[in-house]
Amino acid sequence: MAILNSTDNSVVKDYSTDELIQKAKEMRSYSMISIHAAGSGHPGGTLSIMDIAAALYLKVACHDPKNPDWEGRDRIFWSAGHKAPAIYAALAASGYFPFEETVKLRKLGSGFEGHPNRLRLQGIELSSGSLGQGLGVAVGSALDAKLEKRKNRVYCILGDGEHNEGSVWESIMSAANYNLNNLIAIVDLNGLQIDGPTDDVMCLGSLKEKYESFGWEVLEIDGHDMEAIVEAFSKASEIKDKPTAIIAHTVKGKGVSYAENVVGYHGAPPKDGRSGEESLDKALDDIGDPQFTKEKVDSLLKIASDYQKIVDKKMVEKLPKFSKSYWWNDSEDMKVDMVPTRNGFGDALAEIGSDKNIVAHGADITSSIRMNKFYADFPERKNRFFSIGIAEANMTLIASGFAREGKSAFVGSYGVFATGRAWDQLRTTACYNKFNINIADAHGGISVGPDGATHQALEEIAVINYLPNIVLTVPCDSNETYKSTKAITYEEGPSVVRYARTATPIVTDKETPYEFGITNIIRFRGRKAKFPDAFEWKLGTEYESEGEAVSLIACGPMLPEAMRAAWILKEEYGIESRILDVHTVKPLDMETINKAAADTNAVITCEEHQVGGFGNIVAGAINTSKNITSPLVMDMVGVQDIFGESGAPWELMIDFKLVAENIVEKAKKLFDKKSQML
Amino acid sequence: MAILNSTDNSVVKDYSTDELIQKAKEMRSYSMISIHAAGSGHPGGTLSIMDIAAALYLKVACHDPKNPDWEGRDRIFWSAGHKAPAIYAALAASGYFPFEETVKLRKLGSGFEGHPNRLRLQGIELSSGSLGQGLGVAVGSALDAKLEKRKNRVYCILGDGEHNEGSVWESIMSAANYNLNNLIAIVDLNGLQIDGPTDDVMCLGSLKEKYESFGWEVLEIDGHDMEAIVEAFSKASEIKDKPTAIIAHTVKGKGVSYAENVVGYHGAPPKDGRSGEESLDKALDDIGDPQFTKEKVDSLLKIASDYQKIVDKKMVEKLPKFSKSYWWNDSEDMKVDMVPTRNGFGDALAEIGSDKNIVAHGADITSSIRMNKFYADFPERKNRFFSIGIAEANMTLIASGFAREGKSAFVGSYGVFATGRAWDQLRTTACYNKFNINIADAHGGISVGPDGATHQALEEIAVINYLPNIVLTVPCDSNETYKSTKAITYEEGPSVVRYARTATPIVTDKETPYEFGITNIIRFRGRKAKFPDAFEWKLGTEYESEGEAVSLIACGPMLPEAMRAAWILKEEYGIESRILDVHTVKPLDMETINKAAADTNAVITCEEHQVGGFGNIVAGAINTSKNITSPLVMDMVGVQDIFGESGAPWELMIDFKLVAENIVEKAKKLFDKKSQML
Repeated sequence: MAILNSTDNSVVKDYSTDELIQKAKEMRSYSMISIHAAGSGHPGGTLSIMDIAAALYLKVACHDPKNPDWEGRDRIFWSAGHKAPAIYAALAASGYFPFEETVKLRKLGSGFEGHPNRLRLQGIELSSGSLGQGLGVAVGSALDAKLEKRKNRVYCILGDGEHNEGSVWESIMSAANYNLNNLIAIVDLNGLQIDGPTDDVMCLGSLKEKYESFGWEVLEIDGHDMEAIVEAFSKASEIKDKPTAIIAHTVKGKGVSYAENVVGYHGAPPKDGRSGEESLDKALDDIGDPQFTKEKVDSLLKIASDYQKIVDKKMVEKLPKFSKSYWWNDSEDMKVDMVPTRNGFGDALAEIGSDKNIVAHGADITSSIRMNKFYADFPERKNRFFSIGIAEANMTLIASGFAREGKSAFVGSYGVFATGRAWDQLRTTACYNKFNINIADAHGGISVGPDGATHQALEEIAVINYLPNIVLTVPCDSNETYKSTKAITYEEGPSVVRYARTATPIVTDKETPYEFGITNIIRFRGRKAKFPDAFEWKLGTEYESEGEAVSLIACGPMLPEAMRAAWILKEEYGIESRILDVHTVKPLDMETINKAAADTNAVITCEEHQVGGFGNIVAGAINTSKNITSPLVMDMVGVQDIFGESGAPWELMIDFKLVAENIVEKAKKLFDKKSQML
Repeated sequence: MAILNSTDNSVVKDYSTDELIQKAKEMRSYSMISIHAAGSGHPGGTLSIMDIAAALYLKVACHDPKNPDWEGRDRIFWSAGHKAPAIYAALAASGYFPFEETVKLRKLGSGFEGHPNRLRLQGIELSSGSLGQGLGVAVGSALDAKLEKRKNRVYCILGDGEHNEGSVWESIMSAANYNLNNLIAIVDLNGLQIDGPTDDVMCLGSLKEKYESFGWEVLEIDGHDMEAIVEAFSKASEIKDKPTAIIAHTVKGKGVSYAENVVGYHGAPPKDGRSGEESLDKALDDIGDPQFTKEKVDSLLKIASDYQKIVDKKMVEKLPKFSKSYWWNDSEDMKVDMVPTRNGFGDALAEIGSDKNIVAHGADITSSIRMNKFYADFPERKNRFFSIGIAEANMTLIASGFAREGKSAFVGSYGVFATGRAWDQLRTTACYNKFNINIADAHGGISVGPDGATHQALEEIAVINYLPNIVLTVPCDSNETYKSTKAITYEEGPSVVRYARTATPIVTDKETPYEFGITNIIRFRGRKAKFPDAFEWKLGTEYESEGEAVSLIACGPMLPEAMRAAWILKEEYGIESRILDVHTVKPLDMETINKAAADTNAVITCEEHQVGGFGNIVAGAINTSKNITSPLVMDMVGVQDIFGESGAPWELMIDFKLVAENIVEKAKKLFDKKSQML
């Protein structure tokens, strides 16, 4: 059937097997070029699923690119959203948009998000990216087809690793419960996850036996044998009493010699040790579609770089202007180093891991969040590290079991998953039991960058703060993350340290004051060669008011932005500001915050988070304090109740108005408002 | 082995099979008496697991009631926490505390919580109650035993229904991954859930095949054959290379003739149509332990009622006093009706369910949250209702699949599970995709009562409010819940209606102003025969200030409390207050709230929620508004960052300081503070 004209049900083109094989080469080539141009992405799974994607979109599924919402179309849900380049290639090959567009992958505003967004591109059935969610949606869609007596089929593409997630088994169970013979799941069994081979990360055993025990029909195929793929889809369509799983044995990185079966190419661009361009050439050579001449590749890369230039220009325009640039490391003085805050977590864990009472867990992104530092240089600790796979709920529970036995147990993942995916487990098992588990809330904030909205945690402060018995820290740089991680390890009950992915300014060092639960006060004292030297730090408990005009109350890597804002405010307007480093959000240092509010009567909160998650806590603390006796003006810098998107970290910070320049704009307005009121 | 003296490893008592059978009778009897005395509880599962509990605690597991934290003990984790009376009976039979204490079940402060709290009673390994979490903790404990080379075994008792939860399959997978031969899971396969037989709620198929496909050893037994039970545990202890699941075929309600295999006795006290006492007598007769003479039963019930009297007295003492009582329906006038807000949800759903574009889902508490009203009187709608079982994540996904196809899809559960258990699915699939799903956030607040902390949702406002694209309503009574439910059904994107379990005052009717997104203003106008008639309502947009002294900003059933507070404030102190009914929390009617703050300069927020979840949002809105020009005093009424507990709904409201009298105390203090400042 395949691509139809939905007005008369005529087949637009009937592909032969050879043509499909050729199309798959073209799709592989475009996806490698786009990942190369993006500088990030997921080549491994993109390549392993590509033959199936070609067969499904061009030969098997009925759909009409001219009428994407055609009611009679077969639905294709991608549960494994990180294979987005394969989706884009399949949609382009089908005619939804020109192939050339796909090279704007992961660039701000392009719509070709790191993980697919159905509201931005036609032909995408589902925005996905958090694993284990697509099959349930497919079940709902298949139930609706039954209810409305539609004849379409519902396909769902899953990775093998996401079968670690319990939600997948819930969906599998429900599909059998409802005898969904119109549902076909395709498992891209490439055998590799991020942390290593599937069997090492969390042994799946026989997926065939498991699906069968849950009441499904199972077909097993070579996922790179085009004839076998098409035949399996045909067989699946004949099964009348139950859902069918096609378990496709595939090779991660298939088609690119140096990437095949190599774990490292899960989430890194094609690069084989030579330059990016040479590596791309080799990849395209291996794939072997002759149309990708040097000229063609160059012209495609130019489309990407031209688009990037437009983005760059927009960002320059978007940044509020002052008499000169105050951007990081733009001046001759005020130089700063940049280090990812996650490094501080890793360094602390490496150190405290020597305590045999510490255990740590992995959720298949162990190295990315620096949890691997627990054992990386200490092979003797490997027996205290437990790989749990992509199963944040179970990880939280297992860590709680260790805590029940007296251990201090580390868990972690990207913040969306570490906190939200396991929220009820965190509440009932960890918090209610007061178990000493330590949660690495990684990838906090929009500065996560090109992975896009699904991976940019922007809600954890709200999600965590209102749970009893828990502790929440949001340190400002890598060094403070190190201190915070050490501080919370032996706090009673569950504790969270939130940290970012990208490199952010280092503004503290070993000597900088740090006391868990006490907010620091920072004052700009005048330009210096090095940015941190331009500021004086004190514990909030030791600070005496200098009559500053405004308080900048920040947490996390927004603190360096607030510091830079203080510099700008002073140099541009002569306004003195008191900067608060609220590294401990729960328990909150209400005294220091309330004193700042009472002293300055003008407060700006700064959070790389949905606005108010932090700011409202501060507002509540101030308003219920006993010492506010004059009117307060307040504003908040944060993400404005919208989801993030793909882009470079600092592009996003500017685009979402989270940088010092935005703080200054608001602070100046507050200052003027306050002056009018006096 | 069984109960040991841990100092010398001597067996305290070696029970014969007949003695175990007798002990199980005693344990069943005590649990029925305690559930009867509590007036609520879970007899069905308590009775089905009791023979296994007797065997495990008295014969199989090694533990020492004199040394509950003995490192060498076998661990017994109850994943199905609602079988708490069985735990208490087993611990009492073992000698952890006197049997007589257990009749204080579900009473405030007794420690015999509706769901077990390990921090309140010795011998409980895990506080549980949210299903599907115990096995993961057991896996952690078993891993720790391996790590530390302890020889103890780890037991985990699971219900059949909770195998709907994906987290259980995550844990099952991980136990096999780590070859945990020290872990024994017992499945109480009684075949009934709350909504009906297990096969109807969500077909489990063969649990044996499923466990085996996940790499476990499986033993199947008659869970009421004491010899078979003991033998199965013995066999399980000999399996050396993998974890073992003992699948015990049991009878729900076993031992009480009228309760056996009857769905209704999942969560209702033993009652067979006659009076409670007669029903209890019949139950005890059926169980057949001769020691439970009328005198003994009476003396046990007296222990319970004497304890309750102490609680009653404490509550009277705890309630702030005024010149007279203003308690609900305590006066000759100011009478009010009480109806659970959940009824309003059910009524609305019954009405709007006629729209064929609406589908609804069940999570095994369909009737409790009134989701059953969708089809109860409309058998023709049954094809649009989908039972999903205890699988909130999957329910959210399936509903999203329906929404993808254009449906308006209802899901719901107790708020902890409806929002928190499915948070990431809600975020990524529902919110990011802007799918039109409608979430019944039931059992919001501490007034859930005797089920205790695990079932009292106190965090949803914080958990939901910071998600983009979502709508959150917290209506004040049953009638407003009806209106809110209808209002959100056709709101674009996901929407939440939060409502309570217990009967709360009816303060609105059909004519009361209601506009989605607009806060109502309510003013006390003087006592009337009926409480609602004493108040005037206006839409916030239409209200002109009358120079009131204080604003009481409330949501949900705290609104009637705020209204009562206004009455008290006026009668006791002559203070006029402006009451705000914030039924729509997101989007927030900032204009009406900010006007109230600017007009009165004194604000109290009232939420049956962790304090600040709502109050901080209000504080943030006020502080960032443009029209605050004089100092504001503010306070918040809410749960003080602690978990709830078991008790009668209104006891808890008093104990957690959530009633009108508490609002008045704070309001009077604010008033005085404001007066001093002027």
